[in-house]
Amino acid sequence: MLQLILGGARSGKSRLAEKLATDSQLPVTYIATSLPLDGEMNERIAQHRTRRPVEWALVEEPLALARVLQENATSDRCLLVDCLTLWLTNLLMLNDPDRLVAERESLLDSLPALPGEIIFVSNETGLGVVPLGELTRRYVDEAGWLHQALAERCQRVVLTVAGLPLTLKGTAL
Amino acid sequence: MLQLILGGARSGKSRLAEKLATDSQLPVTYIATSLPLDGEMNERIAQHRTRRPVEWALVEEPLALARVLQENATSDRCLLVDCLTLWLTNLLMLNDPDRLVAERESLLDSLPALPGEIIFVSNETGLGVVPLGELTRRYVDEAGWLHQALAERCQRVVLTVAGLPLTLKGTAL
Amino acid sequence: MLQLILGGARSGKSRLAEKLATDSQLPVTYIATSLPLDGEMNERIAQHRTRRPVEWALVEEPLALARVLQENATSDRCLLVDCLTLWLTNLLMLNDPDRLVAERESLLDSLPALPGEIIFVSNETGLGVVPLGELTRRYVDEAGWLHQALAERCQRVVLTVAGLPLTLKGTAL
Repeated sequence: MLQLILGGARSGKSRLAEKLATDSQLPVTYIATSLPLDGEMNERIAQHRTRRPVEWALVEEPLALARVLQENATSDRCLLVDCLTLWLTNLLMLNDPDRLVAERESLLDSLPALPGEIIFVSNETGLGVVPLGELTRRYVDEAGWLHQALAERCQRVVLTVAGLPLTLKGTAL
Repeated sequence: MLQLILGGARSGKSRLAEKLATDSQLPVTYIATSLPLDGEMNERIAQHRTRRPVEWALVEEPLALARVLQENATSDRCLLVDCLTLWLTNLLMLNDPDRLVAERESLLDSLPALPGEIIFVSNETGLGVVPLGELTRRYVDEAGWLHQALAERCQRVVLTVAGLPLTLKGTAL
Repeated sequence: MLQLILGGARSGKSRLAEKLATDSQLPVTYIATSLPLDGEMNERIAQHRTRRPVEWALVEEPLALARVLQENATSDRCLLVDCLTLWLTNLLMLNDPDRLVAERESLLDSLPALPGEIIFVSNETGLGVVPLGELTRRYVDEAGWLHQALAERCQRVVLTVAGLPLTLKGTAL
């Protein structure tokens, strides 16, 4: 099953995704997309890490997400990707539109055939005023399109608000 | 029936509204409120245009929305207004508060008596931090009040997230 | 019963909370957390005030929310706190992290034992792009964590969109 967990900042989306991964009863591989760039980000990453079970495998990959999913997906494993927001940001920072399109299409094309459980976490950032700045607007556009395309391919889509799940597609949590 | 389709940036709200218009089985008039000001906006408009059936009628009106609705609403026609966000922005840019109030009240007053199907599309922008700048804050306020007033008058209100409809009022989609 | 009413700017959250307070049939104490700092804020406060029944008691407290709740909660009274957003902002502006933690923990710890009806109103601001600025990011983080912790303790949690309630927890409105 493919699941997409959307949510705002500090809305409990990672926590929910981790709970779903644990509930799957499968061995879990945690796929981290973050580039530990600054102190604040390092702190957030450390915080996430202490919350995760020590037996989970860890793969760090900021860009080649489709390849990592293909290499790790098996019918008896749960992959948890946290998060698509940072992956998209990493791709946008490359300033190489062809690479972005290639990575995105590769992800969307390969998804339906992947075995096992895959859970994606992503920030919903489209419900506020879009700040000035071309990169920010491009990010909001790319994230919106990606979420639509992923939601189409996922069997369950959830929006978390204040730590509570609002099921948008599939069996309610 | 009056319907209001709210959604964030790139959330699939226009696409859903277009589907609802097609599903109505009525001839459709598309009411565009955009002023094609810059290259980026022109591109978005062109993108929307290629998606619409060629047989749909088109009316372009940036300000006098109530008048256009009154002129075009008939019991056997579906009007699709895309989008209220730009209409409000156009009115705010006039810097003529009386005109804004007059256009808004005219819209709200005339709506309940209009025949046929009318579908409104608007951006939900109130769920983020409100950026600095008096105009932005006024926009967020005006949009919030308008959405509340419209939602009261509409038989169905939907919020789109990741292309998926979340029905807030009326029969679920 | 503890209730949390979340919503965006101008989404009708205060109006819904006031309706729930009236519907409780209990005498109501309105707990205002705002510091009337500038003209725009004063105007909003005056607007809220004219909408409230004259028989409601009023307590103004920008910081010591837990203390005020403990002093005023009784089994035959409804307390309406509007809003947590301003309370958090007031605490952040003190630039005294220990005080913020103390006030927050005091609120969360005392809540479950408080008698009567308590309704909290708060802005949901986490669903847009988080603007630059460390204080804004800290606000979004603190608000998100607070909402999660409160939602866990409340029997009903509602998100208002366009004046319409979307029940996230508890009996649907």
